[in-house]
Amino acid sequence: MSESRTFSPYSDEDLEADLRWWSAANYLTVAQIYLQDNTLLREPLRAEHIKPRLLGHWGTSPGLSAIYTVLNRVIRQTDSDWLFVTGPGHGGPALVANVYLEGTYSEIYPDVSTDARGIHRLCRQFSTPGGIPSHVSVQTPGSIHEGGELGYALAHAAGAAFDHPELLVACVIGDGEAETGPLAASWNVSSFLDPTRDGAVLPILHLNGAKISGPTVMGRRSDDQVANTLRGQGWEPIFVEGDDPRIVFRALISAITQSYNAFRAGNSSNRRPAIVLRTPKGWTGPHEVDGRLVEGTHRAHQVPLSGVRENPEHLRLLENWLRSYRPEELFDDDGRIVSEVAALAPIGDRRMGATPYANGGRILKPLPLPSTDRYALDITRPGATNHPTTRVLGEYLRDIYFADQSADGGGTFRLFCPDETASNRLDAVFEATDRCWQLPLVPEDDNLAPKGRVMEVLSEHLCQGWLEGYLLSGRHGLFASYEAFAMISASMLVQHTKWLQHATRLDWRIPVASLNILLTSTCWRNDHNGFSHQGPGLIDAVLSLSPDVVRVWLPPDANTLLSIAEHCFRSRDHVNVIVADKQPHLQYLSIDDAERQCAAGASTWDWAGNESDTTQPDVVLAAAGDVPTQEILAAAQLLREWTPEICFRVVNVIDLMALLPESAHPHGMPDSHFIDLFAATTDVVFAFHGYPRAVHQLLHGRPAANRFHVRGFSEQGTTTTPFDMVVLNRMSRYHLVSEALTWIGRDDPAARRLADHCRSQLERHYHYVRENFEDMPEVRDWTWS
Amino acid sequence: MSESRTFSPYSDEDLEADLRWWSAANYLTVAQIYLQDNTLLREPLRAEHIKPRLLGHWGTSPGLSAIYTVLNRVIRQTDSDWLFVTGPGHGGPALVANVYLEGTYSEIYPDVSTDARGIHRLCRQFSTPGGIPSHVSVQTPGSIHEGGELGYALAHAAGAAFDHPELLVACVIGDGEAETGPLAASWNVSSFLDPTRDGAVLPILHLNGAKISGPTVMGRRSDDQVANTLRGQGWEPIFVEGDDPRIVFRALISAITQSYNAFRAGNSSNRRPAIVLRTPKGWTGPHEVDGRLVEGTHRAHQVPLSGVRENPEHLRLLENWLRSYRPEELFDDDGRIVSEVAALAPIGDRRMGATPYANGGRILKPLPLPSTDRYALDITRPGATNHPTTRVLGEYLRDIYFADQSADGGGTFRLFCPDETASNRLDAVFEATDRCWQLPLVPEDDNLAPKGRVMEVLSEHLCQGWLEGYLLSGRHGLFASYEAFAMISASMLVQHTKWLQHATRLDWRIPVASLNILLTSTCWRNDHNGFSHQGPGLIDAVLSLSPDVVRVWLPPDANTLLSIAEHCFRSRDHVNVIVADKQPHLQYLSIDDAERQCAAGASTWDWAGNESDTTQPDVVLAAAGDVPTQEILAAAQLLREWTPEICFRVVNVIDLMALLPESAHPHGMPDSHFIDLFAATTDVVFAFHGYPRAVHQLLHGRPAANRFHVRGFSEQGTTTTPFDMVVLNRMSRYHLVSEALTWIGRDDPAARRLADHCRSQLERHYHYVRENFEDMPEVRDWTWS
Repeated sequence: MSESRTFSPYSDEDLEADLRWWSAANYLTVAQIYLQDNTLLREPLRAEHIKPRLLGHWGTSPGLSAIYTVLNRVIRQTDSDWLFVTGPGHGGPALVANVYLEGTYSEIYPDVSTDARGIHRLCRQFSTPGGIPSHVSVQTPGSIHEGGELGYALAHAAGAAFDHPELLVACVIGDGEAETGPLAASWNVSSFLDPTRDGAVLPILHLNGAKISGPTVMGRRSDDQVANTLRGQGWEPIFVEGDDPRIVFRALISAITQSYNAFRAGNSSNRRPAIVLRTPKGWTGPHEVDGRLVEGTHRAHQVPLSGVRENPEHLRLLENWLRSYRPEELFDDDGRIVSEVAALAPIGDRRMGATPYANGGRILKPLPLPSTDRYALDITRPGATNHPTTRVLGEYLRDIYFADQSADGGGTFRLFCPDETASNRLDAVFEATDRCWQLPLVPEDDNLAPKGRVMEVLSEHLCQGWLEGYLLSGRHGLFASYEAFAMISASMLVQHTKWLQHATRLDWRIPVASLNILLTSTCWRNDHNGFSHQGPGLIDAVLSLSPDVVRVWLPPDANTLLSIAEHCFRSRDHVNVIVADKQPHLQYLSIDDAERQCAAGASTWDWAGNESDTTQPDVVLAAAGDVPTQEILAAAQLLREWTPEICFRVVNVIDLMALLPESAHPHGMPDSHFIDLFAATTDVVFAFHGYPRAVHQLLHGRPAANRFHVRGFSEQGTTTTPFDMVVLNRMSRYHLVSEALTWIGRDDPAARRLADHCRSQLERHYHYVRENFEDMPEVRDWTWS
Repeated sequence: MSESRTFSPYSDEDLEADLRWWSAANYLTVAQIYLQDNTLLREPLRAEHIKPRLLGHWGTSPGLSAIYTVLNRVIRQTDSDWLFVTGPGHGGPALVANVYLEGTYSEIYPDVSTDARGIHRLCRQFSTPGGIPSHVSVQTPGSIHEGGELGYALAHAAGAAFDHPELLVACVIGDGEAETGPLAASWNVSSFLDPTRDGAVLPILHLNGAKISGPTVMGRRSDDQVANTLRGQGWEPIFVEGDDPRIVFRALISAITQSYNAFRAGNSSNRRPAIVLRTPKGWTGPHEVDGRLVEGTHRAHQVPLSGVRENPEHLRLLENWLRSYRPEELFDDDGRIVSEVAALAPIGDRRMGATPYANGGRILKPLPLPSTDRYALDITRPGATNHPTTRVLGEYLRDIYFADQSADGGGTFRLFCPDETASNRLDAVFEATDRCWQLPLVPEDDNLAPKGRVMEVLSEHLCQGWLEGYLLSGRHGLFASYEAFAMISASMLVQHTKWLQHATRLDWRIPVASLNILLTSTCWRNDHNGFSHQGPGLIDAVLSLSPDVVRVWLPPDANTLLSIAEHCFRSRDHVNVIVADKQPHLQYLSIDDAERQCAAGASTWDWAGNESDTTQPDVVLAAAGDVPTQEILAAAQLLREWTPEICFRVVNVIDLMALLPESAHPHGMPDSHFIDLFAATTDVVFAFHGYPRAVHQLLHGRPAANRFHVRGFSEQGTTTTPFDMVVLNRMSRYHLVSEALTWIGRDDPAARRLADHCRSQLERHYHYVRENFEDMPEVRDWTWS
């Protein structure tokens, strides 16, 4: 990290120049919200110049532009890389205005040229069909953060800073966002950012005092209270306050340069600089409208003048407002920004709209992936041995850490996990690195160090947000979560999916590494915790999201998990949901078979069925997931032993999206292939990891979809034994056999004997487990033979 | 609120008595985790006395019991009502032990009697099949808070305190939980609890320093930092620290009595008392095991001695540990707790396990509901007029507030909403009450007051958590959310559903008011915001949860919304998800028709179809939701006008669960009724509010389910116009007509002309909206005629 530096004094000329940039940004912000014509105000403003629908958020915009303006100067002086994270992302027009002024916008979108025609287009495209959305979004150059669902700005900022020692991230946090849970927890990033290995995050808490229609908690608290809140969480606040731009700009540049020097000094103080900026909401906008105060109140939140087309007084106020920025002095006759203002922008990739840190694909290097063969279990006979499935993945991740780690202790890969890395049996990674921790250490700590690069914090929001920021700034990672608690950050996964969905449509957005999430400690094997820990709902939450982005993987064993992991780490712009439990499970496939079957998505397990060349199956037994696979195989074995005349096929589904039609998902299979696997009219007993209806929805439209009888997690759970879980949810081997016999419709003595056996085993289970507090040996120790 | 009081001094005898209670609680905690026999240690401990599977969390338990013990004394002295919220709910055995000692447990579960037989059963049932789960849960007397997914303790505590001026809520927050987002945001409850109208919340931040396998952020921070964090957010911390029980108990009772007096003084200071309790994790448990420190480290988190059955040294350590509590002095020959210890429990409903505040149905009064007629829109012709649908609900809610409000400014109903009450057009409620706000006021504030009872905070987690606490302690409420952002607290909704699912199986849990959530500002009409605000995924997240609890309602207009709202406010133990947009929409049904159709769940709209007594429909046009209903009717009108010879039926679905089979949901309809509505083989073009696959999954197994062609939100969105949204998602009237024509298979000139018309209208739309930034008049102003 470079040294701190002495900044040249902020002269009056500098200030006036900056205020002109700011005026230009504010002008273009208001113009985007209101104008469809006469966008440079070259003639008197008339109703027909106003858009018919006024959409956009003025309130936060001038503050954002003020920060952007001042940062531009600091960047020019220091020649440093800054990333701008816009927490109050509603202020989309402000960010667009600034990246337009710095030239980035026109380079990326040449149609929006740097002249009057470009400004006309800039205004018309804003918040209009076929144009750009009103919030900071994937379309906005320089952004890694969607300005919609609030709460994740500071987590994203930290994610981008990890392992980017040269980077400085300015993270603006609105006081609305500051009320959210994820943001409130994000102040703790101070305990995880290493002062030398990681970049710096400069939170700028922008207190403008109001949300849509009321005050904000932080905005209404005293400076003392705000300072205490930040100090307690590892930050040293610098207050910048006022409504006089000249005072605020001077104080702001002083606060930022002071912060810059503190970062560059690189001390590991527990007090990292943070700026608290109090400026009026809707600053420089209409002060009063229709006799009511607007500036500085919640009434400035969106469109402070709403009746402009109909109300001549509003039209007059709007024209005065626009002219107050003196557009004629900011844009030349061609509509180009005048050169002395344009010169205030940094150069090239230092421009915050052009920084490669916000277009991570530009700096992404493929992850050095060891060959999976080295970690694969040696499987000579399927279903004969048990192994904790995720442990093998832990060893693979350990060696990814080793292969990727740079000499200076950095790297491009991190594992994110609420305090569960060891619990999830991924603890082999601690042979390569430690848990990251900037607070004091004690002798009893295990695998904990400031330079550690495994990210553990008891917040799924932080884990997910950090990983998102890490990926979008050009790195790789994995979020490992207890399955049930992945729902905590489900909305973040949805928003990230939306981001990727739109990113793939933009040529200039270079693909980034996929967001990989491992759901482990699953519903079937949280028998030691209980119902609150049992929930496979994340699958349902992602199934209907963009098929170009979402994949759901259900590897039945360790070697398939390895193969899927490798695929996911190589993939780009996807969201991969991988479901695999951590407990010891039966292992089935050699690594070669695993790779073939993962690529196929769904396969027949010939060794488990009893078809011959001349028979057609009476029933298909299908499974997706580790516990379902075990139960369907145990069911198959019962059928084979008790009713050898019944012909059945066993199918295993690893890639859940393969069940969809081709038209619905790139992994979807055509009906012909579907029939090859599941036959055309045969009943299918399907044991599924999650809620049965997740499969039902995928099967809609398939030939005779009603013949699929799906058993899965039916929301029955508690603290109990593993087998009791499958019994409670009626997915046990005995339930599956009974279901198969029912649909086959056989009533011969052998079938009846088997049905009786299943009933009596379930009865026995009930008594056995209540006497012995553990499962019957014949199910506990069952293997395929 | 009562006066503060002078507490009698805490004598040595008091302390020793309390320590005996604490020993008894700790003994029973360890016994529950380990013992299946010899539960009172009347003989030497042998391997066969130990459970085969050791499940449970020791680490947090002794701290929880210490707090419980001291609170019992305070309750006896003050004769006050306390509710105990156990954030570290993993400590289930500790809470069970305490409510057993106070007698509540045996009153509720007589099988677990107050003698040796009862203790034997208490131990055997813990964490075993058919027994009780390992966490504090719905089965635990005195709990309103499931100890699984962390983050909601303080929100639940505040929810229970609102409008319960006599209640004191002790809310234990673990330092693991303190890292979560929802908990971090919950410190802000200080800005919403009114000191006189509401009860008091006493947060007890229990810093034992470790999570499963690592340190905690708060635990490792200095007292100064913790104090600053709390002070900044409105709390005055009282530190209690140590590992000597005699010192800690004295300090703790002093902290609690001091807090009690501060609450009873009732001042509205910005500094409410909060206790910070630092005690060792696994306090009084094995100090060292196998040469490694355990007590005070993360190794004490779950089962500190894990090899007891196989390892004689572990067995010996366990016996010493158990005997260290001197069970022989705590339980008499019959195994009854000795009388001088039993006498430490409060009496009757003052016992925290028996408080009616934790069994809200006991104190729940029906909500006084005005007749919906008074708010109903007067509909003489369907689809002829527009009205903002939620506005009518706002008027109804206003009068519920009026009818329910008590003379002292309290009540039993609250509306919870992130800063969006006005945006969601429910602002009529401000005629009855204000937004709740304990921070300073300024003249420009609208509808803001300390006594306000509309709860606005920009945190879906807090809104949801407050409502959950409010309901479980015996009141009524509604959470109104932007539809997309309801996903933020989806995991909470899942957990609350699980709670209700198990609660309904317990006779002693008296039914509570349903959790009602209004999803408004929906995906179809967030055209002014954009893609991040467009997501109907909450429907998918709840569909597979317990059918005994979950209902999803899609009222197409204001009168149906009123009818559904009334039904939901009367219902008990349900989770009602109601989807209705706030924008002006066409209105269809009189209040009488609305009530009939809401009760029916799904109905034929005869006036919209063109069947006669002698015809069978060529196609069924179905819709669920406001925008889908509008588009399906517009499609019907096109068919009627352009191809009058095509016979079609229009069906409207309000109760989504009615689509399920009878066997799958109490609202499910039998196939016979299903065929009456949708015919048996006719193609159905179904316009749906949410993701189409949400309907697909419900239809699985229905006669010829493949004939249902569902159009819905297909994850296409941006800032655009209302009609462009339905076009982007291919659910516009023109798409629906094309779909119908395709399936009918007509190729006559009229059908071809209509198909051409649809194509050309879509083409026209594309150009029109890009020129005019608004929708074509014929769709914008369309009404049914």
